[in-house]
Parts: sequence; C-alpha cells; structure tokens
Amino acid sequence: MAAKDIEGFPSKDYHDPPPAPLVDAEELTQWSFYRAIIAEFIATLLFLYITVLTVIGYKSQVDHSTDPCTGVGILGIAWAFGGMIFVLVYCTAGISGGHINPAVTFGLFLARKVSLVRAILYMVAQCLGAICGCGLVKAFQRAFYSKYGGGANELALGYSKGTGLAAEIIGTFVLVYTVFSATDPKRNARDSHVPVLAPLPIGFAVFMVHLATIPITGTGINPARSFGAAVIYNEKKAWDDQWLFWVGPFIGAAIAAFYHQYILRAGAIKALGSFRSSSAM
Amino acid sequence: MAAKDIEGFPSKDYHDPPPAPLVDAEELTQWSFYRAIIAEFIATLLFLYITVLTVIGYKSQVDHSTDPCTGVGILGIAWAFGGMIFVLVYCTAGISGGHINPAVTFGLFLARKVSLVRAILYMVAQCLGAICGCGLVKAFQRAFYSKYGGGANELALGYSKGTGLAAEIIGTFVLVYTVFSATDPKRNARDSHVPVLAPLPIGFAVFMVHLATIPITGTGINPARSFGAAVIYNEKKAWDDQWLFWVGPFIGAAIAAFYHQYILRAGAIKALGSFRSSSAM
Amino acid sequence: MAAKDIEGFPSKDYHDPPPAPLVDAEELTQWSFYRAIIAEFIATLLFLYITVLTVIGYKSQVDHSTDPCTGVGILGIAWAFGGMIFVLVYCTAGISGGHINPAVTFGLFLARKVSLVRAILYMVAQCLGAICGCGLVKAFQRAFYSKYGGGANELALGYSKGTGLAAEIIGTFVLVYTVFSATDPKRNARDSHVPVLAPLPIGFAVFMVHLATIPITGTGINPARSFGAAVIYNEKKAWDDQWLFWVGPFIGAAIAAFYHQYILRAGAIKALGSFRSSSAM
Amino acid sequence: MAAKDIEGFPSKDYHDPPPAPLVDAEELTQWSFYRAIIAEFIATLLFLYITVLTVIGYKSQVDHSTDPCTGVGILGIAWAFGGMIFVLVYCTAGISGGHINPAVTFGLFLARKVSLVRAILYMVAQCLGAICGCGLVKAFQRAFYSKYGGGANELALGYSKGTGLAAEIIGTFVLVYTVFSATDPKRNARDSHVPVLAPLPIGFAVFMVHLATIPITGTGINPARSFGAAVIYNEKKAWDDQWLFWVGPFIGAAIAAFYHQYILRAGAIKALGSFRSSSAM
Repeated sequence: MAAKDIEGFPSKDYHDPPPAPLVDAEELTQWSFYRAIIAEFIATLLFLYITVLTVIGYKSQVDHSTDPCTGVGILGIAWAFGGMIFVLVYCTAGISGGHINPAVTFGLFLARKVSLVRAILYMVAQCLGAICGCGLVKAFQRAFYSKYGGGANELALGYSKGTGLAAEIIGTFVLVYTVFSATDPKRNARDSHVPVLAPLPIGFAVFMVHLATIPITGTGINPARSFGAAVIYNEKKAWDDQWLFWVGPFIGAAIAAFYHQYILRAGAIKALGSFRSSSAM
Repeated sequence: MAAKDIEGFPSKDYHDPPPAPLVDAEELTQWSFYRAIIAEFIATLLFLYITVLTVIGYKSQVDHSTDPCTGVGILGIAWAFGGMIFVLVYCTAGISGGHINPAVTFGLFLARKVSLVRAILYMVAQCLGAICGCGLVKAFQRAFYSKYGGGANELALGYSKGTGLAAEIIGTFVLVYTVFSATDPKRNARDSHVPVLAPLPIGFAVFMVHLATIPITGTGINPARSFGAAVIYNEKKAWDDQWLFWVGPFIGAAIAAFYHQYILRAGAIKALGSFRSSSAM
Repeated sequence: MAAKDIEGFPSKDYHDPPPAPLVDAEELTQWSFYRAIIAEFIATLLFLYITVLTVIGYKSQVDHSTDPCTGVGILGIAWAFGGMIFVLVYCTAGISGGHINPAVTFGLFLARKVSLVRAILYMVAQCLGAICGCGLVKAFQRAFYSKYGGGANELALGYSKGTGLAAEIIGTFVLVYTVFSATDPKRNARDSHVPVLAPLPIGFAVFMVHLATIPITGTGINPARSFGAAVIYNEKKAWDDQWLFWVGPFIGAAIAAFYHQYILRAGAIKALGSFRSSSAM
Repeated sequence: MAAKDIEGFPSKDYHDPPPAPLVDAEELTQWSFYRAIIAEFIATLLFLYITVLTVIGYKSQVDHSTDPCTGVGILGIAWAFGGMIFVLVYCTAGISGGHINPAVTFGLFLARKVSLVRAILYMVAQCLGAICGCGLVKAFQRAFYSKYGGGANELALGYSKGTGLAAEIIGTFVLVYTVFSATDPKRNARDSHVPVLAPLPIGFAVFMVHLATIPITGTGINPARSFGAAVIYNEKKAWDDQWLFWVGPFIGAAIAAFYHQYILRAGAIKALGSFRSSSAM
C-alpha cells in the first residue's frame, strides 16, 4: 500500500477522501456551498410538484372519465417518483451531490461525507422546497387537492404502526444503499459524489420501493416529501403518522450507512493487501 | 486559473466556449449548418408523427374494444413523448444539438450557445416538421383524427388560464434545466452540446412532465408540437389557447437559462479559485 | 486534414471504414462469420419467442380473469418488443452487429457496411429463427395460439393498404435511422458496429413505433418477425398482407440509409475542413 | 498473436482469466470473500421483499378498490422483478459479482468463473436471503399473504409440466446469456465481472421474461426466489412443482454457458488471428 501511494496512480482508485468535519469554516465562504443549497431547494420543489400533481391528476381523471383505465395508475405514480429522482439527481449531482432527501443527507452525514452544517442546511432547504412544491399543486388543483388526499403519506387501514415503520426502514435502506454503492470512491467521477451513470439505478430504487409500499404507507422514504405534503394538506391523520416518516427513513439510512461503511467498505480496506493477488473474482 | 491555463489541460474542463454571435457569417457557408436544420425538421416531424398517432390510436382502441384496458393509457402516451425525445435527441445530438423544440432553442440562444440566425431557422424547421408530422397522422387516421382531438393542446375544463400558463412555465423549466445540466461544458462530449448519456434524462424529463400535466393542458412544453397540432386540427379552442403554449414555454426556458447561467454556473466560475482546495464536496 | 492524417490519431475519429465488398472471400473462411450467423438465428428466435408469448398470454389472461386490467396491455406488448431488441442488440452487438431484423441488415448492406453474402445469410438465419421462435410459442400455448391471432401482422380493419405501407415505411425509418446514428464511426466502439450505449435508444425506437402503429398493422418493421408469425399461424389474411411487411420495411430502411449517408454523413465529410474552425456548434 | 502478446496491451483486451479452481484456499482467507456472501444474502432478501410485496399489494388493492385499474398490473410486477435485478446487480457487482440467483451462479461456475466453494456458499446465502425476504412480506401482509398465493411459483392450469419446464429453461437461457454477454472479458471493467453498464440489460432480460411467462409459471428463472416463496407459503402445490424451478433454470443456465463458451467465445479465440485483418465487420 505504501509503495503504491508513492507511485501515486493505482492507489488513488481506492483512496477515500478524509471524513468531512462537523463544521467546515471554509465551505461557508464559498459560493459553491450556497448554490448547492439553492439547488437542493429547487430540486425538492420540482420533485414534489411533479409527483403530487401526478397523484392528484390521476385520481381526478379516474373519477371524471368513462374510461376506467384512463389514469396513469399506481404504476404511473411510481414512475413519477422514480423518474423525477433520476432526472433531478442527474441535474444536481455536480452541484450539490443530488440528495433531494433528508434521509440521504443523514446517511451521507453519518458516513462523514458531508459536514454537519451542510447536512442541516440541506435538510432545511429540502423541507422548504417540498412545502413550496406541494403549495403549487394545491394552487393549481384547488378543486381536487384536498379531496384526493393531497399526496400526503398516511398508514393505510389494516396495517400496524410497526409494519409501517419497518416498511419505511427497509425502503429507505434500499435507496440509501444504492446511493452509497453509486457514490463509492471506486466509481467516483471527477467532481461529484454521483457519477454520470449513477442517477439511473438511484431513480429505479425509488421506483421499486414505490411499487412495493404504496399500498402500505403511500411510500415516504423521504422525510421532506412527507413533511411538505403534511404541511400543505394539514389534516390530522397526516400529522399523526408524520413521525413514522422521519424515524423510519433515518433508521433505514443509518443501517445503510453502517452496512456500507463497516461491512462492505471496511472489508474492502482490510482486504486491500490481498486484493491484487486474488484472481478468483 | 492563469497558471492552469498555461498548463492547458486541467482548465479545459471548465472552459466555456465564447458566446455565439447573433449572426455567424461563417456558419452560413457550412453544409453542417444546413444539415442541422434538415435534421431538426425530420426529427420534429417524426416526434409529432409517433406521439400524435399514439394519442389517436389509444382513443380509437378504447372506443372500439370490449377490453377497457386495451389501450396504452396516459402512461403509454407519456412514454411516447418522453421516449421519442430520448431517441431523437440521441440521433440528432451530434448533428444539430438535438433541440426538437423551440423552447429549448430559445433557452440555448439566451445562454448564447447558438446564434440568432441558427435559432430562428431551427424554430422554423421545427414548426414545419411538426405540421408535416401531424399531417401524416391525419392522413393515416382520417376517420379518427378530428373526432379524438387531433392531439392538440387545450386547457382542460376547470382550470384557469393562469394555472395553464404556470403549468407550462414550470414544465418547460424542468425540461430546459435538464438540457442545461446535460450540456454543461464540464460534461460536454467532443463535438456536441449533448453527450452520449444525456438524452436519457432529457427524455425522462419530458416523460415526467407529461405524467403531471396531461390532465391540465395536455402538456405542451414545446411550441412546435402545440403549433403543428393546431394547424392540422384547426379548431377554435386549439387556436384560442395557442398563446399559452408559446408564452409559457418561452418564459420557462428563460428562467431555466437564467437559473443555470447566473445561479449555478456563474457561481461555478467565481468559486473556481476555491474549488480545488475544497475537499468537502 | 492532410496534416492530421499524418499524425494519425485525431483524424481516426472521422475515418470511415472502406465499403464492404459484395462477396468477401476472406470472411467465409472465418469462424467469426459463422458464429455471427448462429447468433442472429438464436437472437431472432428468442425475440419472437418472448414477444409473441407476451401477446398470446396477454389475450388469454384478459379473457379468463375477472380483473379487466390483469393483462400487460398494449403498453406491455410494446415494452416486450422494444425491451427484447435492447437486450438482444446488447448481447449480439459484438458478435454479429446485432441486426435481428432483415430491414436493418438491408439498410446496412445499402450503406456498404456488410457484404452481400453476409446480408443474405443473416436474413435467412433471421427468418429461420423467427419461424422457430413462433413454433415454440405455438407448442407452449396450443389452446390459445390460433385463437388469439398467433402474433401475426395484419392490416387492421378500416385502414387502406397505402396507410399500412406508409406506416411500415416510416416506422422502419425511425428504427434504421436510430441504428445508423448509433453505428456512426464517430461513436463507434472497438470491435462492433454498435457501441455499448447504443442498444438502449435502438430498443426505445422499437418501443415507440409499437406504441404508435400497433392499432394500424400490429407493427411489423421487421420482415423476419412478420414472416415467422405468418408461417406458423398460416392463415390467409396474414399471407395476403405479407408483402406489406417486406416492401414497407425495405423502403423505410433504404430511405434511412440514404438520409444518413447522403444528407447527414456526406455533409459531415464535406464540412470536415470547416469543422474545427467553427466554434458555433 | 504471439507478437501482440509481447507488445502486451492489445492482446490484454482478449485475455481470459484462468479458470477458477474448484477450491480456492486463498479466497477463504479473505474478508472480500465473506462480504461477498453477505452481499448476496442481503441482495436476495431485498429482491424477494420488494417483488413479493408488489405482487401481494397489487392483488389486495384490486380486491378492495372501486377502481379496477388501481393496481400496478402484471406490467408493474414484471417491472418490480426486472428493476430490482437492475438495482441490485448495480449495487453488488463490485462486491460479489451480482448473481442474486443460483442459476446465474451455476452458469458462471460451469464456465469456471467462480470456484465450487464460492458457488455453493452463494447459493446457500441466496436461498436464506429469499426465505427471509418472503418472511418479511408475510409478517407485513399477514391478512393477504396466504390469500393471494404468497408470490409462490406454480404451474398455471392448462399447461403441461413439459411446457412449464421448457418455459423455465428458455427464460433462464435469456437471462444467463445476457449475463455472459455482459461479463465477457472484452467488456470487463476493472474489478468486477459486471461492468457499470451491464446491470441495465440484465435487469431488462428479467423484465422481458416475466412479461412472457407470468401466465405460464409465474416466472421462476431463479431457484432461490421459487424456494424462498415455497418455504414461507408452504402449500402443497408450490412444493409439488418446486423441482421445475430448479431443474429448468439449471438446464437453461448450462445451455447458456455452453453457448457462450463453446459457440461464441471459442470461436472468438480461434478467429483471433484473422480478426484484425478483417474489416468486413
């Protein structure tokens, strides 16, 4: 390893950046820090705007059409969530890292990929963006917004709180595990956590989790998404279940960070000495 | 920065091309300029042909089948629009930059990526192509074309003009923001504004916006698409609302150009000095 | 240009291979030629097997279920055709060039990318593969195969032969134009006509054309696909319309070859001298 | 060939790694071996969790909704299987090779890409993961799990055992053929069998096979998936047909390994001498 460090190039592939400090005074002086926060705000706004508009539009169409299959269906809704994450992660990866989700930010903070200050400001920007995005939908769909549930996350009838919490934990684990796999320094592109190809599997992870858990919780796995919809919809049930959509995703993200850093990557570091001599894999 | 310029390579990554002139006399003498205009015409023709044929075919099938779910649904229509943009941007990126949409051309003109002459001729070619594409659909589907609305964009019942305009603005913002993110010189491929991987998120952006706003405006976000369908369909309502589908997309494209050039990229240039010394992102 | 040729590397990017001879005696002595023919046979077999099985399975499910939406719908059928082309072009690109379609082979032959002998043997292999693939479906779905139309291409009621022919011409143009864009030497990968990223837009082109023209012709755009289904289904209507599904695709492929070689590429060659000095595009 | 070997670089592109030994004592001493087994366990668990939850949730929604098209449909189920394979192969390719399927492991073992010990431990991990994934679904969906068939693979009414077996053989052939095409050393990335772009066609292959054979067998093509569902569902029919979902996939994987190694690749090696001198393909 030492020898390779001297040579420079080969070890660079496996060279992790140093852990981000809790407070990075230098980043506070840089415009790139503030435009990253703006980018997170705009991206989360667009995310909620497109997805909740799809949800409300689908329900209003089904009710007002003689063709029962006219709407986009749950499959279309799942595509809206997954596809927007694909597009927005692609657009913001080089600016902010493309989190668009407090659970992702939390996971990357635990792995010391972002500073505490950055993590908090990202989460605030994401929540404000989500509120604005849902607000736009309510303004556009005044007649239908509240009638059709406002895109808010709620535990469906017949499921216990434990089931809902577990569904959020595992769903967020799938997402954040994919994010970590895509942001592994081995695959890392020049100036971004997320290389050019990574947004597609990240978007698909969101798509998949929606297919599976829309019937249970409506699928949160993104506290900003759940919070923004609850603020604008503002009904008791959405607030009563709100904790589920913060605690679940944060636990899921923490498990994914632990799994990646201690099981998959720590092993990678330990095994580095034996790596090159092994041709079996 | 100066030092890096001398070294040549590293600074090239962040080197913006000079702004395109309003009139570039040289490009008028090149065959590559005229084949770009031809490519925009053909691509927009194919775009309208495939998408409007999907819309009309879907509606005719639903009416003539005992299986209510036989048609492709709004999800299939959204795929047709997004998927064709993916395919056509992929095919024309190296020839014309793959605009296929006057709003995209307008946004790139505002950012001084194309000359005024090129922008105007592209828009003319796109509108002519859209008219021809819709004309083919009408010729093929004579029995159904007018009956099923001709694929024209109209404001749906129950929505105000302000809502329709805003939906077009935000929808086009999503598209043109994605185009700018994909054409950022940092990601730029050799001889094209749009590198090999960019067509997919651009196509998905179109797909997403259609999922969200088909119930409101039928989704324009492309003045050539709305204009071509209006010319061939030629009913009062399509003409009455036509201004929405020019003003909205042009405003959305302008905001996206401003956002990218002044918030995201200007920051990038200013922050360049501090960029390399920052390891936090 | 001359100077660059001497330097070797830069000009290589724009260097077309010489036209393929009509009969290449050398390729007949190589195992890579015969395994390419085997690969085309197997790929076309798998293509018809998966797609026609999806068509028949969909129709049988709709008839035997109380859930009218249980089947995959026309959207699912369009995915089957487009998705299989994506997978199979990806798998065979490095072996045979990934044609899987006599119209693609015909277009590439017209552009002198393959020899006449190779083109003829590919088409024979594709047709035999398609017959075997449909034969498997008939063997598996004995009860439903003939009842549900055998996946054969026929002109739908209410459409003229001219419309059907035009639909096949334009649909095949979309596909072969995408193939030419993807196989352009500028984008060419090492040992294949089709680089690693090209199969996705090619598959999407097939997906798109199916969305648009399934209501008109069932979508051929692949003479082997239409021929194989007609041989196994063997009903009068499928044979009566069979010529449409050979003449249309071959005309469409020829137009695409002409468009790419004489409009887009010839221009590229002529414009080469002026290319580097132009920074406008 | 000899000359090129001396030069080093060019021949490396076509250089196969030596066959994996049956027992590789060295890999047993490495952490990378054990984390690969953990990664296979977790990935198969997540695969079954998401996909079976989608199946059960779809069926429960159709029964409890006034909107007959509310569910994701068979198209959504096929997306769940194919999309999860895309995501999980992407995530685990660099850790374990991304098998997530005993048939894939078996095929790669036959091609001597993995040792016997690794193959057996992967299969055990995959089966345990599948059982745990299905167990989670049963725990979450207690009311619906058994009522809606537990996601178990069974031969549908009206199909013979021979048809079911053949459907599993061909379906697995499509998948494993795609895996071999993607893992070909010509395309191989640095430290993984599966380069960064390969997970998408592999996922699509799974998607396609599900579209085609869900009506016949529910689509196994993955013995761990069939076994895990049978263990948790534990009804007679699922166990009676279980052998189909082991014998079929293993035969299909063996044929794919034979096809790739002896038809496609052996030819590649033999033809190597003539390769460079051929410009026809």
